[in-house]
Amino acid sequence: MPTTTNNKEPKFIYAFGGDKADGNAAMRNLLGGKGANLAEMVNLGIPVPPGFTITTEVCTYYYNHNQHYPPELEGQLQSALRQLEERLGAKFGDKKNPLLLSVRSGARASMPGMMDTVLNLGMNDETAKILFDLSGDERFAYDSYRRFVQMYGDVVLGLKPETKHDIDPFEEILEAKKHKRGVKFDSELTVDDMKELVVEFKAAVKSRTGHPFPDDPMEQLRGAIGAVFGSWMNDRAQTYRELNGIPAAWGTAVNVQSMVFGNRADSSGTGVAFTRDPATGENVFYGEYLFNAQGEDVVAGVRTPIPISELQKDDARLYDELNAIRLKLENHFKDMMDIEFTIQLGKLWILQARVGKRTGFAAIKIAVDMVREGLITKNEAILRIDPNQLNQLLRPVFDIKEKKKAIDNNRLLATGLNAGPGAACGKVVFNAHDAVEWTARGEKVILVRIETSPEDIKGLNVCDGILTARGGMTSHAALVARQMGKVCVAGCGNLLIDYKKAQMAIEGHSIIIKEGDIISIDGTTGEVIAGEIKSKPSDILQVLISKEMKPEDSEIYKTYRDLMKWADETRKLHVRTNADQPEQAANAVAFGAEGIGLCRTEHMFFKEDRIRYIQKMILAENDTDRQKALDSLLPLQKQDFFEIFKVMNGLPVIIRTLDPPLHEFLPNEADAPVAAKYLGISMEDLEHKMETLHEANPMLGLRGCRLGILHPAITKMQVQAIIEAAMDAEEQGYKTHPEIMIPLVTHVNELQIQADVVNEIAEEIFIKRGRRIKVHIGTMIELPRAALTAGEIAKVANFFSFGTNDLTQTTFGISRDDSAGFLPYYIDKKILPADPFQTIDRSGVGRLIEIATAAGRAVRKNLEIGICGEHGGDPESVEFCHMTGLDYVSCSPFRVPIARLAAARAALHHLR
Amino acid sequence: MPTTTNNKEPKFIYAFGGDKADGNAAMRNLLGGKGANLAEMVNLGIPVPPGFTITTEVCTYYYNHNQHYPPELEGQLQSALRQLEERLGAKFGDKKNPLLLSVRSGARASMPGMMDTVLNLGMNDETAKILFDLSGDERFAYDSYRRFVQMYGDVVLGLKPETKHDIDPFEEILEAKKHKRGVKFDSELTVDDMKELVVEFKAAVKSRTGHPFPDDPMEQLRGAIGAVFGSWMNDRAQTYRELNGIPAAWGTAVNVQSMVFGNRADSSGTGVAFTRDPATGENVFYGEYLFNAQGEDVVAGVRTPIPISELQKDDARLYDELNAIRLKLENHFKDMMDIEFTIQLGKLWILQARVGKRTGFAAIKIAVDMVREGLITKNEAILRIDPNQLNQLLRPVFDIKEKKKAIDNNRLLATGLNAGPGAACGKVVFNAHDAVEWTARGEKVILVRIETSPEDIKGLNVCDGILTARGGMTSHAALVARQMGKVCVAGCGNLLIDYKKAQMAIEGHSIIIKEGDIISIDGTTGEVIAGEIKSKPSDILQVLISKEMKPEDSEIYKTYRDLMKWADETRKLHVRTNADQPEQAANAVAFGAEGIGLCRTEHMFFKEDRIRYIQKMILAENDTDRQKALDSLLPLQKQDFFEIFKVMNGLPVIIRTLDPPLHEFLPNEADAPVAAKYLGISMEDLEHKMETLHEANPMLGLRGCRLGILHPAITKMQVQAIIEAAMDAEEQGYKTHPEIMIPLVTHVNELQIQADVVNEIAEEIFIKRGRRIKVHIGTMIELPRAALTAGEIAKVANFFSFGTNDLTQTTFGISRDDSAGFLPYYIDKKILPADPFQTIDRSGVGRLIEIATAAGRAVRKNLEIGICGEHGGDPESVEFCHMTGLDYVSCSPFRVPIARLAAARAALHHLR
Repeated sequence: MPTTTNNKEPKFIYAFGGDKADGNAAMRNLLGGKGANLAEMVNLGIPVPPGFTITTEVCTYYYNHNQHYPPELEGQLQSALRQLEERLGAKFGDKKNPLLLSVRSGARASMPGMMDTVLNLGMNDETAKILFDLSGDERFAYDSYRRFVQMYGDVVLGLKPETKHDIDPFEEILEAKKHKRGVKFDSELTVDDMKELVVEFKAAVKSRTGHPFPDDPMEQLRGAIGAVFGSWMNDRAQTYRELNGIPAAWGTAVNVQSMVFGNRADSSGTGVAFTRDPATGENVFYGEYLFNAQGEDVVAGVRTPIPISELQKDDARLYDELNAIRLKLENHFKDMMDIEFTIQLGKLWILQARVGKRTGFAAIKIAVDMVREGLITKNEAILRIDPNQLNQLLRPVFDIKEKKKAIDNNRLLATGLNAGPGAACGKVVFNAHDAVEWTARGEKVILVRIETSPEDIKGLNVCDGILTARGGMTSHAALVARQMGKVCVAGCGNLLIDYKKAQMAIEGHSIIIKEGDIISIDGTTGEVIAGEIKSKPSDILQVLISKEMKPEDSEIYKTYRDLMKWADETRKLHVRTNADQPEQAANAVAFGAEGIGLCRTEHMFFKEDRIRYIQKMILAENDTDRQKALDSLLPLQKQDFFEIFKVMNGLPVIIRTLDPPLHEFLPNEADAPVAAKYLGISMEDLEHKMETLHEANPMLGLRGCRLGILHPAITKMQVQAIIEAAMDAEEQGYKTHPEIMIPLVTHVNELQIQADVVNEIAEEIFIKRGRRIKVHIGTMIELPRAALTAGEIAKVANFFSFGTNDLTQTTFGISRDDSAGFLPYYIDKKILPADPFQTIDRSGVGRLIEIATAAGRAVRKNLEIGICGEHGGDPESVEFCHMTGLDYVSCSPFRVPIARLAAARAALHHLR
Repeated sequence: MPTTTNNKEPKFIYAFGGDKADGNAAMRNLLGGKGANLAEMVNLGIPVPPGFTITTEVCTYYYNHNQHYPPELEGQLQSALRQLEERLGAKFGDKKNPLLLSVRSGARASMPGMMDTVLNLGMNDETAKILFDLSGDERFAYDSYRRFVQMYGDVVLGLKPETKHDIDPFEEILEAKKHKRGVKFDSELTVDDMKELVVEFKAAVKSRTGHPFPDDPMEQLRGAIGAVFGSWMNDRAQTYRELNGIPAAWGTAVNVQSMVFGNRADSSGTGVAFTRDPATGENVFYGEYLFNAQGEDVVAGVRTPIPISELQKDDARLYDELNAIRLKLENHFKDMMDIEFTIQLGKLWILQARVGKRTGFAAIKIAVDMVREGLITKNEAILRIDPNQLNQLLRPVFDIKEKKKAIDNNRLLATGLNAGPGAACGKVVFNAHDAVEWTARGEKVILVRIETSPEDIKGLNVCDGILTARGGMTSHAALVARQMGKVCVAGCGNLLIDYKKAQMAIEGHSIIIKEGDIISIDGTTGEVIAGEIKSKPSDILQVLISKEMKPEDSEIYKTYRDLMKWADETRKLHVRTNADQPEQAANAVAFGAEGIGLCRTEHMFFKEDRIRYIQKMILAENDTDRQKALDSLLPLQKQDFFEIFKVMNGLPVIIRTLDPPLHEFLPNEADAPVAAKYLGISMEDLEHKMETLHEANPMLGLRGCRLGILHPAITKMQVQAIIEAAMDAEEQGYKTHPEIMIPLVTHVNELQIQADVVNEIAEEIFIKRGRRIKVHIGTMIELPRAALTAGEIAKVANFFSFGTNDLTQTTFGISRDDSAGFLPYYIDKKILPADPFQTIDRSGVGRLIEIATAAGRAVRKNLEIGICGEHGGDPESVEFCHMTGLDYVSCSPFRVPIARLAAARAALHHLR
């Protein structure tokens, strides 16, 4: 139930202004982020244009009551307006001192670009004249007027382009006018042009909607409020909410605020700033502004603005005032803030402040720096970083030599703003639709747009890099890129993009880049280069993996190191890695892996010289020939394991016995003749064998432990290789902790049979060598039956490892290989809440994991339990593993840091 | 713990004889079936040669203690022997009146032919002479002696043939002797021949074992007891136990009994009898005997014996005495009994009595007759019949005209004993190994043997029919056939089988039947006919289905009808059928189906004219073409459903929407050119489409409701056909109960989407027709996730149907199509306790069924739940469904009676 007003009716409107606000920052759910922060700033004594917030409860009520407002709203609106009028000494619709308003949305979670805004509300022919009279600035009055008519016509009256290929009706009129006048910028138009534009805009409204443009300010206000609530349910807002998991029931608030004008004269302006650099995280004041402009001009990216550092030179007093507010806000909100400000005739106003979007780089640096500065705690820092953002720190950067060579070869096309750091390379596409389609078929694409808009959200989501011709660091493209962690170069003014021809020319360059051509963009430097460029590892990799860089030489590394240290102090889950090559294992250890959770022995078979032995083994007509082939493989496998044990030196290493169906090792059609010759058999025999081994559903066929049970010689060879390798390593002074894992067990008897083989071989070796080592035997839990009968299985197994890929496939009855035909549709249409191969499905697969964990531990208290599916590196899945009480997650080496941080966050969110 | 003797030591030996026994029939677990019944017969006053039983606890002790006996055994054995000697006035190893013994096994469950027996124990050169002196019959004495040496050598000393192609060493000596003497039968040998045989047999023992044959009776006895316990673990016994689910821990008892001699003179003999006909169940005394023979001669089938009815003519007094015992036993044991008897010098002795094996026919008739006779209750009758035995009543018989034609064409090869009723037709194989191998590749085979032995058990298990040249109705082949429900013709003396040439000649016929030739055998008449003969339906089918026979004309039908009536009064589970054709549905109703549990709509698509529409639908380039193809299918589907609703007239009919992957409907390689022409597309396009639709694991691909979600037009067409058909049927005066079932649901949202389609279409039709019908919407639960989230799904579903085929596949991670490579091995090696596709796996799949049932009912109390996998007709699975509280099982029409009976048995076993 809503809070009630003094006379006990529910309170739907909260006022702010002067040094007093009804609300504060804690009332975010009710007032939305914008409204709550406006109130908070007023309370902090920051200059905010007065106004009021209509609560999110009104939005919820509106959609729960067939789009009707609560009956109390109208009275409260009138009284809030009166209060505002009294405070400002102006009056809404007044002929002497008319009050002008802005109306903006403001949801609980920030939804940039998703919601619509109307400025200058209250204008009509009369008000425009009065504004001219009062300001003495005719140009300002009519510029404001034509802006209002355009914005209102667009947002409230719905005169939007009908398809994305259509031109905006207002832009069309505006462009025609500029063309007629022979000018390039709006600011070059005359006052008369503005007046004509108003008339032409209104005519367009009349002809398109059949109704005249509303001149009554109150009607305008009601329309604008309705449009904000209406926009809560528009397609872009819904898409954004789906992508970000925001419930529709939260609703949006509406902020009605008195206007201040950045377009009132050259002593006016408007800008956007960040309290730290949102791209690098550096503690510098960062932002940009435009003189003689209104807010939307900056974020829309139509004009390229001036860096905020220029303001210091232009107007040191204003800069100092703004910088003081910056420091006050950071100290108060203890986070990097994104500020919108307007200067009206030299006076500074803050229009809004919110926590700023930032790159992964910046997020990590800011969080770590703020701990160092004493602003936040280590735990707060951990909770503030999305683990996936660590990806950006590990992402490759272009090889400097390669890039230099390309530049020397005249391949540098342009330099824009470094809006999203990282190196990306891909085929050029010119619209979001193509981006989605091309990536769906496996292409890497760079989405190139003159400027991006919320309509492009799906394309932005899938592309590898974003390149825009217009817009600054706070443009839509730049914001989205930072949020999604995309590589982005923005505001590359010399790109001449022709959507129709699907190509772009470059000013000052003879090249024409066509759709499908490859380009490389460096989001760290802003460079755009034709063709492909080799990339090189990030700082972290150069420090940890290649050792080309010393830790002390990299600020990024040191930041990463500190954060990881804090995460490790916090987390309860161990993190292992999936690796089957010594180098992989070494990398993973450098990334903090505490063991190998899955070493797939079959990957070792795919090397050229080995595949033939495997083929010989499969094609063997008798046990002797089969054994011969296995004997050839033994020293090779043993050497691999030996190297891995050396690298891991005492950390646990789980080695899985042969898993995939044998036919996966047979040659493909192209290789068959060579293979037949090499193997000394006829093509006919080879084809016959391939036919024999063909399976209708190989995923559920003869694979996993079924192979080892039917062909115990394979298991024996592998076990011998593992144990002898471990003993050899120990004899050379290394420590070892081998764990042998049997795959695809569905009944405890299968595990028992394979465990008997392991023990038998181990015993033979121990006797031969006259000493023993500890060998752990465990199993994958990757079939529903194994999970359901885990109590039985735990009697034989020392450890469980959930193979969540296969477990998801069998639990859902979905073959991942065949899911492309329906799974994307399912996820798009929300039939499934998420891709179950990415994030563990808690109600189905997760339930099996819980059942198996409980049953296993009931039988064997110290049963070691982990997961080794691809979910092991997914933060949400890591959280689930923490909550379920697993011992570890195992993931690919590059996701180890992500899993460490995710595990720390899970530990902070859920005590266990 | 064993019972204790008077002096408080555990009692391991129970004596019987005269009119007093330590034990009785209730002590079956301790004394074994044979021992308990011997004691019981003594208590009933039936003449039984005195002896004692060593309990099964000794066997268990023996195997639990590294093959050592309990220390108390020796003392108890000595004292039991003394007691027996006192009772008989004879003495073991005595030189005046030596006691001779038989030693036999006797497990808790009857294991015919599985355990070994030694007769005439106590004989040596001295005893033979004394036996000659005492009996005045030298031939008897030395015949008994040579039998003992052979049997003891074989069973106790292990002088068996080393491979199955070897000749028995004793048989080799015997055959050589007969050849030398130019005689055919053992009985034609002279006393001197017998004496020589004893010497030659003993020499063979010496040369093969390196030890002389033991002459000391006590050493013989200990050896024989050891051999019985040893034989508990021999291969044949283990195989039999595995096939029949008998735990090894039960152990066997040993029965030591004083000898009576059927080979003492022509006034002696031995025989086997059944208190009713074990093949037909008729209440007639049935059996056969041999004069001057010992027990093993009858059951081994070496000589073909004389029917028991002859005894009435030969010796009416003896016959009457035997018949009186027959009636006494049936009255006492209230079941059909199998009796072994021996006549020694005109005096009748009963050597054992046990519940007789019988055919399915006989089992049913005997049980029903005994209810009618007041011997047992209806419930007892139900519990006495293995539901699978009903199969025999439904099994086809040869078409009489066809058979007559074959006989007229001189194709009748022989007439043997009608040992296993029914008609079978298949390729001839001459050994069990081939039977297993040939059937594994899909052949139907008739296993032809001179005589069968326990070594043949695996072959007997898989073949379609059994034909033997030697042996009577109680021969091994006949016994096994009755037990397994196999068609069998036994004792066909004019077959001249040559194993080496793998062929048989027929005396009096010019034909040579080679391995692989087809023959037909009629197990009801004993006829063996060359080539294939058409068969016709059984009585039950002629009454219920073709109506060619009136109920009152068939005794078999009336028996069946009564039994089914009792079953229906008892069972709690409903039984439905899986049917998708009106005739199938009608048959199922005749068999007692109470509804259709699964109507697979896709089966209707495979008819020639329809498959092209489906192909058109799949190949459609756009929605219009797709809709056109669906429009063509609509009237056809509707007509099918209409006919089914008419047949079912108000019984529930569950219709499942399209389930299989679309590529299953595309033409195969051979059909492709025709199809392409018909469909008016190029072969290239067709091949491309086929490639596009190819899936790596189609079972887990785009199928089930995934199709209906991606192509709602398919669901719409099917729903329209169902509802319009139901309304049409109602308009013609039929009742309907349509239930629409959505397949392969893994998330409740999928069901919701399809339910919305159903409701939308239904509403359209209701509005058009101006009236409504009730349409139930439910889902298959056939994926683990659906079972685990059944509570969510039940919010949308009116009913659940467990698709246990797919549920087993996904729960085990085993594709049934691909399981041939390992599943038979798994079952053979007991890695899995049973074939999970035949019998529900209770710990895995069953657990999911329990979880889903509980969760579903918790949300929707009256949720209708059944199963429609092939398990619905498997008695063990039906029992599980009863225990879990399902509402119904659904199975193929021919298994409906089996399911009804199984449900009744489950209800008697488990109250719910």
